[in-house]
Amino acid sequence: MTASEADRLARVALASLGEPGDPRMASLVAQLGAPALRDHLLEAPDPDRPAGLDAAEQRMRRDVAVRLASVDPARDLSRAERLGIRFVVPGGDEWPSRLDDLMAAETLHERGGPPLGLWVKGPIRLDELERSVAFVGSRSATTYGTSVAADLAAGVAHAGYAVVSGAAFGVDQAAHRGALAAGGRTVAVLACGVDRAYPTAHKPLLDHLGRHGAVVSELAPGRSPTRVRFLTRNRLIAALTRGTVVVEAAVRSGALNSAGWASRLHRPLMGVPGPVSVAQSEGVHHLVRTGAATLVTTADEVLEMVGASGEHLVTRPRGATTDRDRLPERVRQVLEAVPRRQAAGVESVARTAGIHLIDTQATLSRLERLGFVEQVAHGWRLRATNAGVSPAQTAEIPTMGP
Amino acid sequence: MTASEADRLARVALASLGEPGDPRMASLVAQLGAPALRDHLLEAPDPDRPAGLDAAEQRMRRDVAVRLASVDPARDLSRAERLGIRFVVPGGDEWPSRLDDLMAAETLHERGGPPLGLWVKGPIRLDELERSVAFVGSRSATTYGTSVAADLAAGVAHAGYAVVSGAAFGVDQAAHRGALAAGGRTVAVLACGVDRAYPTAHKPLLDHLGRHGAVVSELAPGRSPTRVRFLTRNRLIAALTRGTVVVEAAVRSGALNSAGWASRLHRPLMGVPGPVSVAQSEGVHHLVRTGAATLVTTADEVLEMVGASGEHLVTRPRGATTDRDRLPERVRQVLEAVPRRQAAGVESVARTAGIHLIDTQATLSRLERLGFVEQVAHGWRLRATNAGVSPAQTAEIPTMGP
Repeated sequence: MTASEADRLARVALASLGEPGDPRMASLVAQLGAPALRDHLLEAPDPDRPAGLDAAEQRMRRDVAVRLASVDPARDLSRAERLGIRFVVPGGDEWPSRLDDLMAAETLHERGGPPLGLWVKGPIRLDELERSVAFVGSRSATTYGTSVAADLAAGVAHAGYAVVSGAAFGVDQAAHRGALAAGGRTVAVLACGVDRAYPTAHKPLLDHLGRHGAVVSELAPGRSPTRVRFLTRNRLIAALTRGTVVVEAAVRSGALNSAGWASRLHRPLMGVPGPVSVAQSEGVHHLVRTGAATLVTTADEVLEMVGASGEHLVTRPRGATTDRDRLPERVRQVLEAVPRRQAAGVESVARTAGIHLIDTQATLSRLERLGFVEQVAHGWRLRATNAGVSPAQTAEIPTMGP
Repeated sequence: MTASEADRLARVALASLGEPGDPRMASLVAQLGAPALRDHLLEAPDPDRPAGLDAAEQRMRRDVAVRLASVDPARDLSRAERLGIRFVVPGGDEWPSRLDDLMAAETLHERGGPPLGLWVKGPIRLDELERSVAFVGSRSATTYGTSVAADLAAGVAHAGYAVVSGAAFGVDQAAHRGALAAGGRTVAVLACGVDRAYPTAHKPLLDHLGRHGAVVSELAPGRSPTRVRFLTRNRLIAALTRGTVVVEAAVRSGALNSAGWASRLHRPLMGVPGPVSVAQSEGVHHLVRTGAATLVTTADEVLEMVGASGEHLVTRPRGATTDRDRLPERVRQVLEAVPRRQAAGVESVARTAGIHLIDTQATLSRLERLGFVEQVAHGWRLRATNAGVSPAQTAEIPTMGP
């Protein structure tokens, strides 16, 4: 057995001991290596030689040893393999290095440790998730929410970024559908074994992802979802991706838990706004309001947030700019004072514009050459052709500020 | 004639010379005083003694002198008085001191100077606007936009803050109506004389404000609105108030100009989000996205932004918190592993929870005492009464974070 094979087997065995994300486990594996830790834990302490352990600790250690001795990781791995499920571990070539950020001190939360390994079903390799975006949000999303989630996911997927989400109703489902509709890559991370469909109504979706995308979990095949597992699962969604988009989330929502992980990992957290009267947007608005999340409204804005610097440049939204706006302010002021139909004398224009007569006279001549105004029998008036918008000449003019 | 009367007359005369907001005018008035500046400008330079002025400058100075000589401020003031319009000047007891911030260096924009005086019609005194909020937004607001504008303005007015806005269709109108419906105070700042109604459809609204609120302008009665005057008017809306709320604003919108003034004056700028697919919210989303504006969704959030520290404390929105959430995580983990109907043995619960047998046993006893679980013939199951939500016991529990 190779060292890496021993490592894989030990990780499967150790993962069976408790819930995912235990930072003490992660820390011990990092110090000792998985096989040595497993061997150490298999040696139940001799009750006649307590080595400083009290009775309760001794019982606990024996419990762990019994448990470890009862698992058969080689059998678990080969069973999984028959189901098309592989086990991806740190150090292996498919390991997504982003997950190592979970080892960083600030993320060493009670359930924030890195996974011992990930069970994966589907053709997308986890090391291909370098460019990926998480979509999280309400299970009971509104039509608006699912529609925006699908649109944004489609845009992100179209740009070559993988979409990563859970498998719940609402935003999760909409994000996967959007990515698939765009012919893009999409990955579901589960809070149960990847051989299980939860919710069961999403079995067809998960089957599809197992064949064309990827279904991922740190829980061994067969394990069931629990509330705690959803919370630890959320850290993986945040950690696997470059940034997390919250589409709709009520004030008390699992999506805000994912959002918290993205912040803790210093990954961009983005929120999609919605009407203020809708409860499903309240949590998102709170994140944006407090500065925890950046407001995003388009896939381009998402890509700008997660892209390498300069990789995605968002064109600032801009209305049509009129020729008028290209004029210096005092010139524009004179132009504003010229009537559209009835001509006005230069004194009248100067008075309305509040600009001295000679300046006004000179400016009117300039405006005439530019085709904005025309001189008729009784004075000056606007030339009809230049009263409108000319979006063709709209370069380089900032639209903000007075 | 008293000194203050001379000052008022000089200010009316000087205001007739050009467009509002000219910082050079403001600066000269600050240095020389309005009467001295007026006297100086009335002395047209002698063409035979050029005093360093070139021909064009001489003509300009003569033009100014002729103009000044032609105005009759005393007549203008008494005409205005007959229309119920007063002229409020710096140093007078009704002068809103916030406007003096326009003298600050950073606001000395091409059109950013303080007004020479304000023409006011209506019972609200300008020095009562110490507690006030500006509402700006699209003339072509959506139904959603006008409804939110009216709601927020009503909430703000109900809390004793005056509402300040323009007199346009859409958000301006909705803000006034909301404030009036709440029995609150509201003020319209115009880009034309306060005796004029623009748009004409808003004559009834402006008449009402002239009797029960206030209509304000730095333009003398009779002057007409121009594009430049709308832009300079916007600085007054921002400068008169503690903060500015942008309800809906397309990318290219006058409301964004007001927003720019609020930022320049270091007054809180707030944006109300909306659906991402609606053009009228794009400008607001851009302000929030770039950090220029803080997202607000309720009147309380607006008041929190503009209130003195601690004056308005917003209760964080919070969903119902269940008893479960009050439990330490490992205890909750055991609770999650207890089935709802079919009882499970302690080994099974321990295995599902991923917690050692003895810990699980102890925790189950604790959960039994707390009334969460019950022991039956074949093991443990949830007590139905505690599976639900108990919002009565929801104090002090943070809702964010895993």
